[in-house]
Formats: sequence, structure tokens, C-alpha cells
Amino acid sequence: MQNKIYALILAGGAGTRFWPASRASLPKQLLPLVGSSALISQTAERVLPLVGWERLLVATGKHLMEQTAELLTELLAGNMLVEPAPRNTAPCIGWAAFRVARTDPDGVLIVLPSDHHVQDLEAFGEALAAAVRSAAGGMITTIGIHPTHPETGYGYIEVAEDLTGIEALPALRFVEKPDRERAEAFVEGGRHLWNAGMFIFRARDMVAAIRAHMPALAEGLEAIDRAAAAGEEDAAVERIFPTLPSISIDHGVMDHLEQFAVVPGDFGWSDVGSFQTAWELADKDMAANAAPQGTVLLDARRNLVMDLRKKAPERRVIALVGVEDLVVVETDDALLVVPRARSQDVKEVVAALKARGDGKLV
Amino acid sequence: MQNKIYALILAGGAGTRFWPASRASLPKQLLPLVGSSALISQTAERVLPLVGWERLLVATGKHLMEQTAELLTELLAGNMLVEPAPRNTAPCIGWAAFRVARTDPDGVLIVLPSDHHVQDLEAFGEALAAAVRSAAGGMITTIGIHPTHPETGYGYIEVAEDLTGIEALPALRFVEKPDRERAEAFVEGGRHLWNAGMFIFRARDMVAAIRAHMPALAEGLEAIDRAAAAGEEDAAVERIFPTLPSISIDHGVMDHLEQFAVVPGDFGWSDVGSFQTAWELADKDMAANAAPQGTVLLDARRNLVMDLRKKAPERRVIALVGVEDLVVVETDDALLVVPRARSQDVKEVVAALKARGDGKLV
Repeated sequence: MQNKIYALILAGGAGTRFWPASRASLPKQLLPLVGSSALISQTAERVLPLVGWERLLVATGKHLMEQTAELLTELLAGNMLVEPAPRNTAPCIGWAAFRVARTDPDGVLIVLPSDHHVQDLEAFGEALAAAVRSAAGGMITTIGIHPTHPETGYGYIEVAEDLTGIEALPALRFVEKPDRERAEAFVEGGRHLWNAGMFIFRARDMVAAIRAHMPALAEGLEAIDRAAAAGEEDAAVERIFPTLPSISIDHGVMDHLEQFAVVPGDFGWSDVGSFQTAWELADKDMAANAAPQGTVLLDARRNLVMDLRKKAPERRVIALVGVEDLVVVETDDALLVVPRARSQDVKEVVAALKARGDGKLV
Repeated sequence: MQNKIYALILAGGAGTRFWPASRASLPKQLLPLVGSSALISQTAERVLPLVGWERLLVATGKHLMEQTAELLTELLAGNMLVEPAPRNTAPCIGWAAFRVARTDPDGVLIVLPSDHHVQDLEAFGEALAAAVRSAAGGMITTIGIHPTHPETGYGYIEVAEDLTGIEALPALRFVEKPDRERAEAFVEGGRHLWNAGMFIFRARDMVAAIRAHMPALAEGLEAIDRAAAAGEEDAAVERIFPTLPSISIDHGVMDHLEQFAVVPGDFGWSDVGSFQTAWELADKDMAANAAPQGTVLLDARRNLVMDLRKKAPERRVIALVGVEDLVVVETDDALLVVPRARSQDVKEVVAALKARGDGKLV
């Protein structure tokens, strides 16, 4: 008998790197930062062929429920795991694992961040299939990304052997974000992959791992599970979830496993970490501008223009004349102009607005 | 007996150099391009101490009536000379001259463009007083501006003698916009002033000059004048004005005078010809940014930011990070980003919008 597949999309994140597009109340997974649909919608589309809406779970925060549901209109109400308070990834992944294990302990759960981008869907599908095979065999599995440059902003996953093929390999350990020198050695050495936050496992295996390595979390999740069996999950979550240990699945569980597997992935993955990345991934015109249709671009090159206004008048034109390598982002209550190369400095605007008491704009 | 003074503000102009701030339906005199009030309001304030509202005339087009009246709330309804069709400056200056001459032929009329800027109001007042004295003596008089650079975008006024003092001098002739070489010679030679489009004359003298040099115009204006005496000016203007010769007062009258006078002016005059000029004239912060209060400026220098939206939500923030020497202009239906040094290229946006059928945005 083949194991049923489930998916959990982690959609609780916030962030400041896409201000004014992203807000505390509108994090990046809810935005069409690449392509025309929100990142979370694209994430759902990548797994729906495997799981269908019945077996697609989405974990998010209370303040994002409504907007998330507006984007995933077919998501079953009961499949939205609403976290009353943010507790990092271990509690909500555990919640989903216990939930699936209650009825289908052999079910394989695919955990995916909601705000990443994948260019090569076929290669992604193959990596996912390899990870599901590995997980079905009882091995908690991740997908690691072949590094394309010595990135110091990501964690890495070390494997014992050379990275060849696309099947799951035994992983050695998670490695924290390295400095530049170590990152270069990782890329050079050919035994490190980027940790992209994807986890694939049988429900029973994650439940066992949490029981073994996070007994306090297991206890809380069991209480929620019992309440759920009695039809009282919501109240239990409201009461218990905020008391669960706030820790990542990496540190809480993965670091303590005797063995786990990693599937090397090479499918044009990006965490869409900045406007710079959004521009790189976007469809561009001959002058390398990524801009909404109708934008007037005269002698303008390599610019990223985003119009995310909702209360827009019927017609409005954005005109860029003689400018290069700029990011221009509009929302209903903000306009940002920044050189693409300084996309990272956007978080300073958020800090400045908070400092002057304009917290509601961030 | 001292001559009464009247003023005529020419406010029919359109233009494309301030798009999207300016439009066919919202030319630059109606905008607060320098300071916090519209250029036309500032122009009115400069002459009101001399003329009061009773003797302040404003010439404008039908499509600008309403907005002009909104800015000059105390303007007497009968003092707005509404041109049914644009016929350049000679017909409307003539209309005002005939109108004043009917009741006060010795009245001195000051004609001023509506969309210029003056920094030194005291020096301007002195030049105006000198021009009024000259005009009261029967000499049609202009005010010419001491050139600060060899501008090829303006016409010049040549005088016989060296330009010293601030009293009216005999003028030799108007000179069309020169090429660079001639403009340099003009600045070098010390006998040329910029033509700033200001004319000061007794009503009777202009009426006589028009009769002598533009008999067809005189005939039309006399017909309007007779109708006005009979209380039927509006209908006559509607019928006759569009048939009047479309020509500037420079070519139609001034070029044909045996003699006229010019008062050399040095009062920080500007025709506010581009966003570059608007930035130069604006109040700026320590980093030379001219921007509305509340703009977030991080490591941003020498930028001009204009927020001319009317349908604005309550709060909106504009953030510029790490950019220099940019112009950022927002209106309800357009956003422009252009380097300050390329302000002149804004007219290409207008051309591009017209070419693609977006004429209502220009």
C-alpha cells in the first residue's frame, strides 16, 4: 500500500525586507513578488497535484487568517492551523504531524515554507518524489539546494559523500550560517547544500522524534490531539499553543536525530530575499525593466517597478525617464524609491518609521 | 494727479514641462511649484499692494476659469477676462487696454505672466515703480532681466547704452532666442536683457499703438468695447475674440514702436522652466532635498519630491533610500521618477502618452 501524502505550508512569517510591499499585516508570502500570483498561491499549486485540497494544511497566525483564506479560496476551513501566538516552526510542524498521525500514521507529510520561489517545477517534482520515497521508508528527509554561490545568509546541510544524483543521501548535520570563508569552502568542497526549510517525513516518525527529543512539546501536542479527537481542538490550541516551547524544527528535532536524509535539489530555488532577487526572477523587457504593463519607460534600464495599490483610481500611469537600477514600489499608503543594489537597506525605513511613531505603516 | 495703476495677469498658458504635476487642464501657474501657494497666487500677491482687487484683471482660458477662481477667491467676477479661444498675447492685452482706456485712459496697466517666480520682492517693487513712472510719462515700457548666463531659451531686449541703474532706459529692439554663441556675446556685451514678458503702459498708449500697428485687432477690440459699454461684453467676446489675429504683443506691437523703454531688473527672477529650476528655488534640508514634511530620506541627497495628490488617503509616506539628484512627482493618476538633470525630458513622456492614446493623462 502506498502512503498517502499530506502537505503543510508554513505561512506565519513576517518581514521587513519588502517594505512597503510587505507589512507586519501583509508578509511576503501574501504578495505577488514574482509572477502574477502570491508566493503562497504558487507554493500551494506546486503541491496540490500530490495532495489535493483535502490533504493540504496551512499554518498561519491569527492576524493573517483572513488574507490567507482570500488567496487560497478552496482551502478547507479545518485545514488552516491557526497559531494563537508565534512559536517558531517546531510546535506547528508537530501539531500537523500529530494531527495526521491520529488517522494516518503512515501518511507522509511535506512541509514547505510559503514564501519561496521555484523555477523548474519538473525538477522540483522529482526532488519531492525522491524525498517522499525516502520518508516512506521511515527516514526524516529534507531537500537541500545545490549552492550556486557562497551565501552567508543561509544555513547549510552537510552530507558524508559527494553530491551526485537526485536520490536521498544520508545527511551528517545542519550547519549554522557560515562566514564568508567557510561558505566558500562549502561551495568548493561539494558536500554542503543550502537548508531551504523543507521537511518530508511519515507522521509517525516525526511524532516519535518529538516524543524522544522534545517531551514537553510532545505533551502539549498530545493534549491538543486528545481535545481534537473530542471535537474541542480550537479551545485547546488557544490555551495550550502559546505555552509550547518556541524553537525551530531544526534545533528542536533535526539536530538530535541519529540519522536523517537529504535530497539534493537543483530546481532554480530562491527564498526571494530582497527586491534585488524579485527583479532577478521577474519577467523583464528588452531593457531589463520589470514593470507593470502600461508603465512608461523612456531610456530607463534594469528597474523594478511594483504597483501594489488596492484603492487605486481607474487609470494611473507610472513613468520612469532616464533612470537605471532603481526599485520603485507603490502601495496605497507608501511609495519607496531605492537603488536595486541597496534593496537590503529597506529595513532601515521600517526602523525609521517605527522610531518616529509611524508603526502602523510598517 | 497720479495715474491709477491696474494689473493684468496672463494666465492662459499650458505646458508639458511639469508633467505629471502640470496638465493641459492644470498648467503650471495653478501649481505650488515653488513655496506653498500656486505661482499665480504669488503673482497676484506681488501686485495687489499696488492695485487692489478692484483693479486686478486676470486673462485665462475657459477651461481654466474655475480653477483660477478657486485660487484667487477675491478676484472680481467681471475682472476675469475669459478667452473663448487662445489667440496669443496681443488680443488679450489689447482687450485689457481698451477696457481700462474706456474709463481711465491715463491708467497705467502692468502686464505680468502668471507663472514666474521672484525672489527679491523689494527689488521687484522698485523695478515696477520705475516702469510705472516711465509708462506714466507716455512710454510703453518693459522690464528686462539682467542675464546671469547665456540662456538660449529666452528672447532678449537690446538697449543702446550700458546697463546701469534701475531707471527705465531707451530700448532698441526685441531679439529672438539666440544661439549659444550670440547668447554669450549678449551676456559679455552688457547691453542685453532677458525678455520676461512684462509690459507696463498707459491704457491710451497701448490703444493708440494697436490702432497704429494692428488695425484689424483694433477694430475687433473696438467692437467688443462698444458691446461692453452696452453691457453685452460676454456675447461680443464669444463672437469676436476667436476671429482676432493670433499674435504676440512682442511681434504685433512692440516690434513696430518707434521707441519704447526697458527697466533693467535684478530681483531673482525665474520663469520656473523645469523641475530642475523648481528644486533650485525650493527650501531644502541639510542634504539639499526638497521634499514634503514626513518624507523618509535615508542617505538621500539633492532630490526633489512633490506630492500633488488630491484624493490622498489620510496618511501616506514617501521613502527615498540611497538615491541622489532625482525628481519624484506624484499626482492622483501618475507617478514620475526622473533624474533632475533630465527634467527637460519629461515632455517626452507627454508625447509617449499621447502617442499611445492616453491623452487624458496629459
